[in-house]
Amino acid sequence: MNSSTNQVYPVIWHNNAVSLIDQNRLPNEYTFVEISRSEDMAKAIKTMIVRGAPAIGVAAAYGMYIGAREIDTNDRNCFLERLEEIAQMLRDTRPTAVNLFWTISRMMKTAYETLGTVEEIKTSLFHIAQSINAEDLQTCQVIGANGLKVLPKTPNKLRLLTHCNAGALATAGYGTALGVIRSAWSDKRLAMVYADETRPRLQGAKLTAWECVQEGIPVTIITDSMAAHCMKQGFIDAVVVGADRIAANGDVANKIGTYSLALVAAAHNLPFFVAAPLSTVDFSLSEGSQIAIEERHPVEIYNMGNIIVTPKGAKFYNPSFDVTPANLISAIITEKGAFPPEELQYYKEEK
Amino acid sequence: MNSSTNQVYPVIWHNNAVSLIDQNRLPNEYTFVEISRSEDMAKAIKTMIVRGAPAIGVAAAYGMYIGAREIDTNDRNCFLERLEEIAQMLRDTRPTAVNLFWTISRMMKTAYETLGTVEEIKTSLFHIAQSINAEDLQTCQVIGANGLKVLPKTPNKLRLLTHCNAGALATAGYGTALGVIRSAWSDKRLAMVYADETRPRLQGAKLTAWECVQEGIPVTIITDSMAAHCMKQGFIDAVVVGADRIAANGDVANKIGTYSLALVAAAHNLPFFVAAPLSTVDFSLSEGSQIAIEERHPVEIYNMGNIIVTPKGAKFYNPSFDVTPANLISAIITEKGAFPPEELQYYKEEK
Repeated sequence: MNSSTNQVYPVIWHNNAVSLIDQNRLPNEYTFVEISRSEDMAKAIKTMIVRGAPAIGVAAAYGMYIGAREIDTNDRNCFLERLEEIAQMLRDTRPTAVNLFWTISRMMKTAYETLGTVEEIKTSLFHIAQSINAEDLQTCQVIGANGLKVLPKTPNKLRLLTHCNAGALATAGYGTALGVIRSAWSDKRLAMVYADETRPRLQGAKLTAWECVQEGIPVTIITDSMAAHCMKQGFIDAVVVGADRIAANGDVANKIGTYSLALVAAAHNLPFFVAAPLSTVDFSLSEGSQIAIEERHPVEIYNMGNIIVTPKGAKFYNPSFDVTPANLISAIITEKGAFPPEELQYYKEEK
Repeated sequence: MNSSTNQVYPVIWHNNAVSLIDQNRLPNEYTFVEISRSEDMAKAIKTMIVRGAPAIGVAAAYGMYIGAREIDTNDRNCFLERLEEIAQMLRDTRPTAVNLFWTISRMMKTAYETLGTVEEIKTSLFHIAQSINAEDLQTCQVIGANGLKVLPKTPNKLRLLTHCNAGALATAGYGTALGVIRSAWSDKRLAMVYADETRPRLQGAKLTAWECVQEGIPVTIITDSMAAHCMKQGFIDAVVVGADRIAANGDVANKIGTYSLALVAAAHNLPFFVAAPLSTVDFSLSEGSQIAIEERHPVEIYNMGNIIVTPKGAKFYNPSFDVTPANLISAIITEKGAFPPEELQYYKEEK
């Protein structure tokens, strides 16, 4: 499935099914999982075969379509009722990334607004899922270009630090934060990516590093707690991260550790950028404290490889995200431009 | 070897040899390694069978004695010459922890100052090694008591965050940072220890958690990047860490991630304490930037269990320590009392 090219697409519609890159097996194995049932899509999102807010959105859109395809009725009301159940099953997979809820709402809206037979609704749903996929890819490329306008102008090439994976794997392709980094690389403005390994699931060490290596972008992996030390030594020019949900005031929920990184960047007067499509903004929430933060199983912390590294009797706390307040963010880089978080409100209608 | 009691002593003189707890095997196996050759002691320090600045100091003192014992001559000058070589081999193991250099100097001074036969020098060396061990244990207990005087007075029991392991395992016993925590526990002032797992070597998840569990102290393990998020939610009352070397101005070199933690603690107005014996202060260095920072092999980052988790072609940076500037430290807790870092200079003669 194209694994010989450098282009990475984590969600592909192929042979009437969805092929997902199995992100739990990267970087050691570059394999695909074929999903043709909505229930399997829900499971794939929950177990993080597919992860990253925009990629989850695209996967859920296809999940809604294959769910619609499973419904064996010609009765419109009966169909819509069953589709609502599938929507709920997909919504229940992960609580923080808003793109999931946004694409499911868009799919449901399409279903309600499509006049005609159940078959015609199914066809509409397929086209909208395809559009969501294509739009996300295009959006990422525009985000990349917009990022170039705000990255610092330095005498030497840039050293950019990123956290987790907001790359092609986290989107329909190209990436948000890593899209900006890719654009800097194409523009010959990039010297080095510093990738936080991103405990506990190591998306930085595994996925971001893999994407960089695929394209020959120089990448240095560090543990999360080394970022401040690197900044102090002058190794870093700016930080670029993605987002799982952004509140109306510009507070950003993103992978655990992002808040810590924003604080240490501020202490070193380094610009801190969040790259995300406007679909990541949840205008219904006035501030970040209202964002639901997923807690995951402690096995993510206590297992290394297949070895339990911690003693029996210890407790764990494993929040998957944290919230970075808007005042620590230099600019939010979107498909409509890069601007300070407080200007987000002007884009409410654009969404 | 006492593994049925709760008291933890990482370096024990036993049957004319040194027994070291094999800290690379904890918490899954609580076993000892017997060392009877100075070369093996150097290797044990390098491979971190024994680690933690004060414990390295004690181990090196015994390493000097067993090295002295190996020298087969009655000629004083010839003996001292050979002993200098052993001292150098032990110094070459790890560059950052100053206690190593301090105890080796003390042992060499003893050798030069002892009048009489080579046998008499060897006997002096043994007694000094035993003293260094006993003094460190006693020092830790006093540090623990002194820490109680500066820990915040809170209406509820304290929640203390620590990084790496500055516990019994890192000292002759009882611990420095964990000594303060132990004293708070004995004093019924402690509700919870938050232990940073401390990547890459996981001394927090493995060793600090193990020590806490051994004594029934409640401990919650988090990944390093969760500390800021915990602070923001009001889970933490204060941070207590150890030190590997302290410059005359109060700048502190400690396990990588300490600096990051000090920055995020400052951002939340939380007290940040460093607990260490005065032997950790290197008055010959005016500030922290002069402290040599050890870089270790990237295998510590890329191997999880026995699995390589990162892609081929990625680079790594693996500094083992960082430097926290004095202005981020509320107090240094020593055996002579707890005081702001700028008062360290008054204790130069005490050392």
